[in-house]
Amino acid sequence: MARPILALAGGVGGAKLAHGLAQVLPPDDLAVVVNTGDDETFHGLHVSPDLDTVMYTLAGLVDTDKGWGVVGDTFNALAMLRKYDASAWFGLGDRDLATHIQRTQLMDDGWTLTEVTQALGTKLGVQHAIVPMSDDPVRTVAVTDEGELPFQAYFVRRHCEPKLCELRFEGAETAQPSPGFHDALERARALIICPSNPFLSIQPILALKGVKGRIEDLSVPKIAVSPIVGGRAIKGPAAKILHELGREASCVEIAREYRGLCDTLVIDDVDRNRADEIERLGIRAQITGTVMTTDADRAALARHILSLVDVDPPH
Amino acid sequence: MARPILALAGGVGGAKLAHGLAQVLPPDDLAVVVNTGDDETFHGLHVSPDLDTVMYTLAGLVDTDKGWGVVGDTFNALAMLRKYDASAWFGLGDRDLATHIQRTQLMDDGWTLTEVTQALGTKLGVQHAIVPMSDDPVRTVAVTDEGELPFQAYFVRRHCEPKLCELRFEGAETAQPSPGFHDALERARALIICPSNPFLSIQPILALKGVKGRIEDLSVPKIAVSPIVGGRAIKGPAAKILHELGREASCVEIAREYRGLCDTLVIDDVDRNRADEIERLGIRAQITGTVMTTDADRAALARHILSLVDVDPPH
Repeated sequence: MARPILALAGGVGGAKLAHGLAQVLPPDDLAVVVNTGDDETFHGLHVSPDLDTVMYTLAGLVDTDKGWGVVGDTFNALAMLRKYDASAWFGLGDRDLATHIQRTQLMDDGWTLTEVTQALGTKLGVQHAIVPMSDDPVRTVAVTDEGELPFQAYFVRRHCEPKLCELRFEGAETAQPSPGFHDALERARALIICPSNPFLSIQPILALKGVKGRIEDLSVPKIAVSPIVGGRAIKGPAAKILHELGREASCVEIAREYRGLCDTLVIDDVDRNRADEIERLGIRAQITGTVMTTDADRAALARHILSLVDVDPPH
Repeated sequence: MARPILALAGGVGGAKLAHGLAQVLPPDDLAVVVNTGDDETFHGLHVSPDLDTVMYTLAGLVDTDKGWGVVGDTFNALAMLRKYDASAWFGLGDRDLATHIQRTQLMDDGWTLTEVTQALGTKLGVQHAIVPMSDDPVRTVAVTDEGELPFQAYFVRRHCEPKLCELRFEGAETAQPSPGFHDALERARALIICPSNPFLSIQPILALKGVKGRIEDLSVPKIAVSPIVGGRAIKGPAAKILHELGREASCVEIAREYRGLCDTLVIDDVDRNRADEIERLGIRAQITGTVMTTDADRAALARHILSLVDVDPPH
């Protein structure tokens, strides 16, 4: 069996590159390992927002306007839930709700998150492996200037408005990488860190027991893609968080964040003038178009990245 | 506190008369005790079809064409659930699903079905007491010529097609009447058996530990309304079941079924020629219009019934 590409991803940005990789790689050749630190229980249902965003994206079901959720979804169950519980605030679409209901039932039946994720993806026609970072619970907690907030309360309910001081990943110190993640770390021929939020999406993965050291020790090509383009995040609060941490919102700070974890950082054409600073950090800067608007953009970026890995990349 | 009217109800037919009673009685003056023998767990969610039909009806939310479910509901979650589980067959609307999600969560938190039912009804604006027959699980099993079927498999999945031989009520021998039912049995100034299916809806209530004897011993007016009109059931399989049990589909057989449990049977005008047979069974036959098409029909039937109970019935 070929050695696969291991991609680390969070939500929307990661899902787009994962979709590009899935377009150009055969199913056995890719493992997308996804953050589960933002998993949460809502109304008794186990919600895995990043896993679902990657799954819906690879299944061609994602709402491309928002980047997450199911295209054309309705929100009638949520409207009714709000009659029962006026404090219901997490936006659950009706089709999306079916995913959480099915996941919760299978987990109550004793399935691991890995098994559930594989089963759901298969039913939606996803051929590539979507792998939760861990089958053990890890919960990201945002330590803000207003106190500690569970991740979704910070991210969705408060729209990331409170100033972020630091992040805690409850459970990470004992959580094991999932079997699929463990296996991919053993066998991967390259690591790709997708253009996800380094703090909210990638840090939880790195916080798992032993993972950061194993990635540092990997002797294969390790390529990150900057989620910051021209000083701004394509989506989400990465730039805001960098500012709040007293850092510049730039691809150079992304390089600094991933020092030791990647040997190459892919940056956008608009940031070509920052390449020298990145190289001075001991990281090779690769310049290309990184903004993925269309499916073709995603495939093109995936091919570019794979050309850095393989002698004979897919065309 | 006034002594309330105790009404026993199942789904659609019972809900209509319960709605009529709720239109003409103050909130404290009515307790609608509802069959829970057809409760079932679908996709890990606790579904109480009869409780919900009564609740939606009293809340003015019911789909009046079907008689159950929420008006204008969509079925998008179910369509998605069927992608995950092609065997999903129970018709759960999106708004309806919110009820099951909320109920399941509260019960997982330790609430009794009584408490959940009251809380949900209150949130939907229901002022009258909707009371589950028991907080203990009772499950109706249809013993058919094709073997035993759980109630919803018989009723919904198989559309009552298998020939019914008898019914079993699993758990009924130990299930206690709920506190509200117990209290209503103690205090009621009258018992009304709504025009629900005597076998599928009323028998489970009567099967609860001690209930049949307590109703037989009640020394207050006990009035049943025939669900069979002109030899046919207004809705559902009551007539079919009577035939399968080798009995005539008629209000006379309803009287026979309720012998000892009611002193008066309200029958429809079209059945006035059967009154004598009913009276010969020791049950008074009251003749009036019993088909409840409009809200006003329901209130009129409720007022007629209450005129048999109270010296000064509501107008």
